[in-house]
Amino acid sequence: MNIKLATGEEISIAEGENILSALKRHGKYLISSCGGKGTCGKCRVKVLSGKYRTAKAGKISKGDRDKGIVLACQTVPEQEISVELLESSRLVIGDKIALSKSKDLAELFKSLDGKISPIVNKVSVKLPPPSIEDHISDLERLKRELNTKGMTGMRFSHGFVLSMADSMRSSGWDIDLAHVNGAEAIFITDRRDTSRYGLAVDIGTTTIVVYLIDFSDGRLVDVGMTYNSQIRHGDDVITRIIYATERGGLNELRDVVAEDINNLIRTITEKHKIKPGHVESAVVSGNTTMSHIFWGIDPRYIREEPYIPAVNFFPLWKAGTARLNINKQAPVYTLPCVASYVGGDIVSGVLASRMHRSSEIALFMDIGTNGEIAVGNNEWLMTAACSAGPCFEGSGIKHGMRATEGAIEAIKIAPDTFEPSFSVIGNTTPTGICGSGMIDAISEMLLTGVIDQRGKFVRDIKTDRIQEGDEGPEFVFCRGEKDVVLTEVDIENVLRAKAAIYAGISLLIKEVGFTLDSIERIYVAGGFGNYLNVDKAIILGMLPDLPKEKFMFLGNTSIAGAYLCLLSEKLRKEAEDIAHKMTYMELSVSRNFMDEYMSALFLPHTDIGLFPTVEKLLKAR
Amino acid sequence: MNIKLATGEEISIAEGENILSALKRHGKYLISSCGGKGTCGKCRVKVLSGKYRTAKAGKISKGDRDKGIVLACQTVPEQEISVELLESSRLVIGDKIALSKSKDLAELFKSLDGKISPIVNKVSVKLPPPSIEDHISDLERLKRELNTKGMTGMRFSHGFVLSMADSMRSSGWDIDLAHVNGAEAIFITDRRDTSRYGLAVDIGTTTIVVYLIDFSDGRLVDVGMTYNSQIRHGDDVITRIIYATERGGLNELRDVVAEDINNLIRTITEKHKIKPGHVESAVVSGNTTMSHIFWGIDPRYIREEPYIPAVNFFPLWKAGTARLNINKQAPVYTLPCVASYVGGDIVSGVLASRMHRSSEIALFMDIGTNGEIAVGNNEWLMTAACSAGPCFEGSGIKHGMRATEGAIEAIKIAPDTFEPSFSVIGNTTPTGICGSGMIDAISEMLLTGVIDQRGKFVRDIKTDRIQEGDEGPEFVFCRGEKDVVLTEVDIENVLRAKAAIYAGISLLIKEVGFTLDSIERIYVAGGFGNYLNVDKAIILGMLPDLPKEKFMFLGNTSIAGAYLCLLSEKLRKEAEDIAHKMTYMELSVSRNFMDEYMSALFLPHTDIGLFPTVEKLLKAR
Repeated sequence: MNIKLATGEEISIAEGENILSALKRHGKYLISSCGGKGTCGKCRVKVLSGKYRTAKAGKISKGDRDKGIVLACQTVPEQEISVELLESSRLVIGDKIALSKSKDLAELFKSLDGKISPIVNKVSVKLPPPSIEDHISDLERLKRELNTKGMTGMRFSHGFVLSMADSMRSSGWDIDLAHVNGAEAIFITDRRDTSRYGLAVDIGTTTIVVYLIDFSDGRLVDVGMTYNSQIRHGDDVITRIIYATERGGLNELRDVVAEDINNLIRTITEKHKIKPGHVESAVVSGNTTMSHIFWGIDPRYIREEPYIPAVNFFPLWKAGTARLNINKQAPVYTLPCVASYVGGDIVSGVLASRMHRSSEIALFMDIGTNGEIAVGNNEWLMTAACSAGPCFEGSGIKHGMRATEGAIEAIKIAPDTFEPSFSVIGNTTPTGICGSGMIDAISEMLLTGVIDQRGKFVRDIKTDRIQEGDEGPEFVFCRGEKDVVLTEVDIENVLRAKAAIYAGISLLIKEVGFTLDSIERIYVAGGFGNYLNVDKAIILGMLPDLPKEKFMFLGNTSIAGAYLCLLSEKLRKEAEDIAHKMTYMELSVSRNFMDEYMSALFLPHTDIGLFPTVEKLLKAR
Repeated sequence: MNIKLATGEEISIAEGENILSALKRHGKYLISSCGGKGTCGKCRVKVLSGKYRTAKAGKISKGDRDKGIVLACQTVPEQEISVELLESSRLVIGDKIALSKSKDLAELFKSLDGKISPIVNKVSVKLPPPSIEDHISDLERLKRELNTKGMTGMRFSHGFVLSMADSMRSSGWDIDLAHVNGAEAIFITDRRDTSRYGLAVDIGTTTIVVYLIDFSDGRLVDVGMTYNSQIRHGDDVITRIIYATERGGLNELRDVVAEDINNLIRTITEKHKIKPGHVESAVVSGNTTMSHIFWGIDPRYIREEPYIPAVNFFPLWKAGTARLNINKQAPVYTLPCVASYVGGDIVSGVLASRMHRSSEIALFMDIGTNGEIAVGNNEWLMTAACSAGPCFEGSGIKHGMRATEGAIEAIKIAPDTFEPSFSVIGNTTPTGICGSGMIDAISEMLLTGVIDQRGKFVRDIKTDRIQEGDEGPEFVFCRGEKDVVLTEVDIENVLRAKAAIYAGISLLIKEVGFTLDSIERIYVAGGFGNYLNVDKAIILGMLPDLPKEKFMFLGNTSIAGAYLCLLSEKLRKEAEDIAHKMTYMELSVSRNFMDEYMSALFLPHTDIGLFPTVEKLLKAR
């Protein structure tokens, strides 16, 4: 059966398949933060004609329902239907997580290495065709020729041997042997066939990004992005670990993430007419839990004190084992992890930031679903996980949401009337507030005296914006079909998150005997970073009070580092060095961290002397 | 549902499963030469009570049917039934293929090496348990301790890592690491757990034999035997290769043989209360086609000129890959093959014969479903496949059958009356004639003048035993419900087979500049060898006319060699040396072979001078 899109395009849909799934298979991604459970109300499409049945209409108003608007994840066509995709439902992660541009990537690579040296090497071998006289087996024939080239002791996997005989014959015995370091044979290709591609993957807790790279010139062929469908089993790594330890859970999470990646691979390879078998190697970057689950390794001990991952430095395993639909024999390199809560994505980020090459002391921070920081330079590196929690991604905040359409992303509060003005992503009716909106809101509320330095509402100010909600006092930003508010409990949650981040930074710096002033550069990575207003984050006391020019926003450094490692052996070595070099501090058990944290549970900080700029602003109030 | 056996035992049977299959799952093997197609009429059981449906009653007489006798492979119970197993249907391969006895095996091993050195080595590692301070990952922890022992650069497979974390914890961090040559980690066991077992497998075209060995002392724990269920897709390697090249055929054949082996493994491990996970390595011996199919490697090029196998020297792959239900990580060693039609079973046999260690020139011959020969000593080895065809196993012979119950196995013909007398396996009514019976019959017919030296019936002798059948003239050995005869066409087929064997032997010896007299020892391997009457085989001209004391019957040398390789690294090396050393002659394209073959198509040979003993007998006639 087919779905007809308003654009005229037709896509296939299987019997009983929902529209969201069919669209995804064809590379058309809708926002679906709940992972297809029918609860977030995001994946709206408009059915123009045809019969369908829809299970839930969560969060769709009567008026919209009458217009034919349905949730794609809950709707199954009963005959050929015609559907219009709504711009507001389109997933455009690209904008949100600020992917590095192809040109920037190329320059970054050039600045770090510039010489393409993929994981897979190739050696041309002209085999004498077999005859009655020269009747040794295919494998012995190959070994014999390799011996004459001084290549001995190579390992031949079962997977290699399975396709070897046919490959040799179809290539007319004039082959390229793909191998890794002369130590293991990977596959055989026809010597005339020179197409070689690689895959870089960033497995975020929330989003997945893939890059397809042409090894002939390092060019970025295309980018694919989607939500990590594991979301339906939990927002953060802890809930995923819990799910993984349930019966069959690990395997399900593993399948789900592989399927997400495979959907992206299929869309890109079909579009560019590339054979998936020509994708000969891959690099995967993710936090420690994501990396474990990707490989099907039980992550349970990550969560149990003393928080020990099974693996930090992953051996080079095969794409077939990873269930990736590229060449089954393709080696998959996993960015090495440092500890249970500082993973390959941070190693990847440090590599892409280049801080490990410079003598200047830099701070690297990635505030995504988890919060990780690293401090150091070309001589030393310290790292910690801040357990900031996913509140900046909307979790645990009454009207919190991700930075997608309908989210209040920037806020001003008039100092005299306390009336708020705001901008909403997609210029639509606001449905919630995202991380940058929260930071804006709280810093504005502080500067206008709506809240005090403990984050509590000041009750004697003249405004009807503060009201008693079902969770206690709250500030109403917007009244409508649904109010958008920030409660005192929300503010407390944000305070805890920012305190964890600041305390982590502060402690790491102290631990190595420096002060915050010593930090010459701050690299902010991750999607959230791009919307972060540094001034406001300093007012909040989340970022140290340092000159604005020291801050640099790098976007998705996890995928950038994966790209670098895909292209260069030297950079893979550097990534290993970074991971080896990084000293990990377990903050959750540190006495000093608790002190730092308690001091930071204040706006901006109990020691206002650390925030001279904010002190000035508060005085000016 | 259960089947109640007459012995009181009850065995489970699945919905729709036939009785043969259920019995097999419980280690009770019936003769079923057709592989369960309902055509051979062998797998008879007697249903004592209960309802069942039976599809075919091939070869079961009305009288027997009335007694409740059915074919197990064609009968599915419809409710709980009670069944009596008939002694005549029991598969007792043990007797037929003369397994080496445990004591003989131990002596053989002692004479060749004596020091047990399995494929898997173990090293004890006491890991310091992890803590907040010492928080490196499990894998890095293991590597760190191995480094202190000077063991570096070990490979860690995905399968190893999957079970590593749990194994370390359940062992209290005091582990034994199983590894291969310090190069690859295999699995982890609790140091207190010292059970270590190994599996030797002989995959014959017709039968499968497994030995379970205790590595603590090399003791044979138990033996299991069954028919190779691939039989249902063809009697010989050629038909199997053809089936393998059909859609899905290879995978099916692979599954079928793995299932046969797994059934045997389950029966033995359950009986001896051994955990399959404690079976830590395996050795497989089979002909080149069987070895390819076992590993799922396409055997098609074995059959196409210039007859090239994909692999002769198989890398060490995993039991999981081989689909064997022992420790999934267990390395599986495959006896190396020499050429497309001289496989690991022959290398194994030469090893077990010890001819490669002695200066005396020996001839090794294995006349099973295929016929292979090897000639040589500790300095050189020549080998060839005789393409004798499976006629000695009953194929292509009107009333031919395997050496099982009902087969005429020995024959005498009275020189005056031409009346035959014979013995039948199982002392029952004869239903056919097996390989040794054919050789007896033809040599007796020659000596009594029933046939001439061309194998044609002498028409002017006075007997009514020679009659005109539907395939031409035939000699009737037994009249009954069904006559048992040998036709002129049958004799021609046997002549072709014996000529191929003799020509092969003769040519190999000539090729190295020796004469048949130089052969100091003849090793006869394989099941057929045990029933072979050497004198008669010489009269036939199948074996060279050498003194009887030079002949030695070794039984199943394929499994014996597999056992040796399972126990000893030195002997695995020797097997490799044998395979490397063996010069293979492709007889099918040799001009000289055709000449030798044509000369041997005579009883005993066109050059009677080669057979002085037979010449004397013929003159005495």
